[in-house]
Amino acid sequence: MIRVTVWNEYEHERTIPAIREVYPEGIHGALKNILSAEEDLCVRCATLQDAEQGLSEEILQDTDVLIWWSHAKQDDILAKNVDRVIKHIHSGMGFIALHSAHYSPVFRKLMGTPCTLGWKHGDHEKLFCIAPSHPIAAGVSHIIDLPEEELYCEPFSIPKPDEVIFLGWFEGGAVFRSGCTFTRGYGKIFYFQPGHEENRVYDDPDIRKILINAVRWAAPEIRLPKPEENFEIK
Amino acid sequence: MIRVTVWNEYEHERTIPAIREVYPEGIHGALKNILSAEEDLCVRCATLQDAEQGLSEEILQDTDVLIWWSHAKQDDILAKNVDRVIKHIHSGMGFIALHSAHYSPVFRKLMGTPCTLGWKHGDHEKLFCIAPSHPIAAGVSHIIDLPEEELYCEPFSIPKPDEVIFLGWFEGGAVFRSGCTFTRGYGKIFYFQPGHEENRVYDDPDIRKILINAVRWAAPEIRLPKPEENFEIK
Amino acid sequence: MIRVTVWNEYEHERTIPAIREVYPEGIHGALKNILSAEEDLCVRCATLQDAEQGLSEEILQDTDVLIWWSHAKQDDILAKNVDRVIKHIHSGMGFIALHSAHYSPVFRKLMGTPCTLGWKHGDHEKLFCIAPSHPIAAGVSHIIDLPEEELYCEPFSIPKPDEVIFLGWFEGGAVFRSGCTFTRGYGKIFYFQPGHEENRVYDDPDIRKILINAVRWAAPEIRLPKPEENFEIK
Amino acid sequence: MIRVTVWNEYEHERTIPAIREVYPEGIHGALKNILSAEEDLCVRCATLQDAEQGLSEEILQDTDVLIWWSHAKQDDILAKNVDRVIKHIHSGMGFIALHSAHYSPVFRKLMGTPCTLGWKHGDHEKLFCIAPSHPIAAGVSHIIDLPEEELYCEPFSIPKPDEVIFLGWFEGGAVFRSGCTFTRGYGKIFYFQPGHEENRVYDDPDIRKILINAVRWAAPEIRLPKPEENFEIK
Repeated sequence: MIRVTVWNEYEHERTIPAIREVYPEGIHGALKNILSAEEDLCVRCATLQDAEQGLSEEILQDTDVLIWWSHAKQDDILAKNVDRVIKHIHSGMGFIALHSAHYSPVFRKLMGTPCTLGWKHGDHEKLFCIAPSHPIAAGVSHIIDLPEEELYCEPFSIPKPDEVIFLGWFEGGAVFRSGCTFTRGYGKIFYFQPGHEENRVYDDPDIRKILINAVRWAAPEIRLPKPEENFEIK
Repeated sequence: MIRVTVWNEYEHERTIPAIREVYPEGIHGALKNILSAEEDLCVRCATLQDAEQGLSEEILQDTDVLIWWSHAKQDDILAKNVDRVIKHIHSGMGFIALHSAHYSPVFRKLMGTPCTLGWKHGDHEKLFCIAPSHPIAAGVSHIIDLPEEELYCEPFSIPKPDEVIFLGWFEGGAVFRSGCTFTRGYGKIFYFQPGHEENRVYDDPDIRKILINAVRWAAPEIRLPKPEENFEIK
Repeated sequence: MIRVTVWNEYEHERTIPAIREVYPEGIHGALKNILSAEEDLCVRCATLQDAEQGLSEEILQDTDVLIWWSHAKQDDILAKNVDRVIKHIHSGMGFIALHSAHYSPVFRKLMGTPCTLGWKHGDHEKLFCIAPSHPIAAGVSHIIDLPEEELYCEPFSIPKPDEVIFLGWFEGGAVFRSGCTFTRGYGKIFYFQPGHEENRVYDDPDIRKILINAVRWAAPEIRLPKPEENFEIK
Repeated sequence: MIRVTVWNEYEHERTIPAIREVYPEGIHGALKNILSAEEDLCVRCATLQDAEQGLSEEILQDTDVLIWWSHAKQDDILAKNVDRVIKHIHSGMGFIALHSAHYSPVFRKLMGTPCTLGWKHGDHEKLFCIAPSHPIAAGVSHIIDLPEEELYCEPFSIPKPDEVIFLGWFEGGAVFRSGCTFTRGYGKIFYFQPGHEENRVYDDPDIRKILINAVRWAAPEIRLPKPEENFEIK
C-alpha cells in the first residue's frame, strides 16, 4: 500500500461561494475520491486548518507521497512546517505540487529559484506528451484537451527538470512546461500545472490517470534519513 | 576567425519559380549574407550540386561550423558523405541543422531516433525562450513573433536534448521544441526549427541574432580526431 | 509477465576453454538462471549461432526487454538484424547492453557517437550509486565491491545519459560512468559496465538485483510502431 | 571587462600558522593573483571580516562573477547576506563555489538539497574530464593529477547538474562529481571540488585554466532583475 496524503490550503472552497459550488468537498476531497478508487493507494486528507497546519511529524512519517494544492495562503505556512516537509522529501517522501503550488514555499525552497511565471485568467489548454515512455504518461492520450484552464506562461523560473513530460499549449498564445519531474535528496517530485479552482479539471480521465501514475512513480524506493551532516570516511 | 560553411540542397529555389522569387540567391545565399556581416566569421557556401555533393574532405577540414538546410533531396545524399560529415562532427566540427534538416540523414544518425514530427502548411508561430542565460539566447527577445511559418508539432522523436532553448507555439494548436542543443563526440549541435522556404524568416532580426550566436557557440574548443577504436591503457 | 530475451554472441565460452570453465552454460545461461527465479519474468535465450542470428522478427515481437552481451563478433552481426533490433527499441522494446556491448553496432547506432573508451585487463572495481532513488538502484548497496573486473576508463564517448546511476572506481586509476540510462524513441535503454567474461560478476547479489530491477524498469509502458515518416496534421 | 569578486571567509589562514604559511595572502589573494593576469578580468577581494561581511549591495552590483571559498564559518554568514547573494545570482551574476563551499548556505539554498558528502583527510586525486567540448574544459588536460588533495566521496546530495564536466578519482577508494554546472534563475553556477587549504592546488596550471575558463563561462549574457512576483499577461 502506498500511503497518500492530500494536503490543501482549503481557502477558496470555504470562503468563495462560486468555488464551493465547484468543489463542495474541497479540492482535497475531489482528489481523495479519485485516488481512493485505486486498490494500492491508502489516502487521507490534511488542510491548513488542521492542527500543526496538517503537517505534523506524525502525519509526514505516515506519508509515502504528499500531494499539495495551495494558492492564497502560501505565506501563512509556518517556516518550521515547510522545513519539516522538506526534510521528509529529502528522506524519500514523494511530493506532487499542483497548479499554483509552483509558488508554495515548499516547492520554491526545493527549486532554489524564484519559480515565477506569467498567467492569465480563463483560457483553453492542450497538453502534449513529449515523454510517452515515462511511467507518468502510461496509458495517457498524447494530446489532452482542457477546454477551461488558467493560462500559465513561460518563462517559468525553475531549474532544468529531470524530465519534461508534458508541454502545455494555450489558445491565448502561451506555452508552458506543464508536467516536470525533479529529484531532491531521495525524494521524487512532480509538478503538474492543471488544476485551477474554478473548473473540475481533475475529472478528466487522462488527468486522473496522470495523478494516479504520478503517485505510484513518486512512492519511495527507499526511505532513509538523508545525512544532515557531511560524514567522515575512515 | 570562425570558418562557416553553409550547405544547402538548393532544390526548391532552382526548380520552383515561387520559391526562387523568395530566395533568388538560394537559402544559402541569404544565410551567407547574414553571417558575412560579422567580422569574426568567414563564410562560404556549398550545395548538393557541387562536386562530392559539396561535402568533400577538403571542405570539411576547412570548416569550424557547418550549417545545413535540406528537405526534398535528403535521400540523395550519399552514405559516404553522410559518414564523412559525422566523423568531422565527432571530431569537434559544430553542426547547425535548420528546419526540415531534422529529417536529414546526418541529423538522424547523430540522434539514433526516427526524428519524426507532425507538420501542417501555413501557420503563425511564437517562439518562447526558456533558457535566457544560454549564449545562443544572448540579446534575443523573450518572445519572437513569426507571422508566417510552417507548423511543426510534438511528438518530435529525438533523444532528450542537452538544452531546450526555445519552445514554439503555433496558432493552429501545436507546440514544438524549436531550439535544442546536443553534443555528439566533441561536436556541438543546434537544431533550429524556423526556416520554411516560402517565407524569409531569416530576415527577422531575432532569428539572425540566434543564428550568429549559434555559430559562435558551436565553434569547437578543440578539434581532434575522436578515437575510432577503444584504447588500451598501459 | 515481462518477456525477456537474453542474447549472447556466445563465442568466448565455446572457443576458449578457460572461459568455458567460468561459464559452462554460456553467459546467457547464467543470466537466464538469475532472471528465471523471478516470478514476473519469462526468460529465453538467443545467440549469434541461432537462425537469423537469434534476432528474427518473431523473437523480437515476442520480447519486452532484450539483454545483450557481445564482444569479439560485433562486426559479424548483419546490418539488417541490427536495424530490426533498433526498430523494435524505437517501438518500445527495452534494451540492456552489458559490458563490451558498449561497442555493439546496436548500441553505437542508438547513441550516434563512437562509444569508445579506455580499458585495461584485470583490476579491482568499486561501484558507487549516485542516484539512490532510481528504480534500478532499489535495494542495492550504495557501494558494491567487485574484486575482479576489467578496468574501463573515461572518456567514454557517449551522449549525455538521461541518468547516471552508477559510477565505477578502479584501483588502477580510472573512473567510468558504469550504469547509465537513455531513451530512444519509446525504448528505454540501460548500459551496465560490469560483466567481463573471466569472472562470474553476475553472481554478486547486488549485481543480480540491478539486472532484475533494470529489466522491470525497461519493460515498455507502451509498444507502438514509432512513426517512420513525418505525419501531416489536418 | 568581467568584474570578478573573490570572496573568502579567510579564517584558517589567519588563525592556523601552518595554513598561513601555505597561503600568506589568504586563498583569496592567491586566486586574485591567478585571475588578475588575464586582461579581460578585473578582480577584487572581499572577506567575512569586511563591512557587511564583504557582501554589500554595492559590491554585488559591481560583480559579474562571484568566487566563493568557505569552510569553518559557514554558519556565521548572516541570512540577509545569503539572500542578497542569491538574489544577484537569480538576476544573472555568475557564482563559482570552491571545495568546502559545497556546504555554504548560498550553495545549499540554490540546490534545495542537503549537499552532504563523505570526506577523508589527505589523499591523491586524479580529475577526469568527461565533457571535453565544454568551454570550462577548453585547453585543459584530459586527466589532471593532484598528488595532495582532500578526498571527497559520493553520495554527494545535489540535484542532477546541468553538466558534469569533471569526475574525481581518489586513491583511497572514492569517486566524486568534482566539477558541475547548474543554472538558477539567470545565474550560471560552477561547483569545483579541488581546493583544500593545506595544499596550493590552485598553482596547478590546469586548475588555473579551469578557474579562468569558469569565470568567462559564468559571466552573464544578461543581468536583469528576475521577477520576484508572478506577472499577469494582458
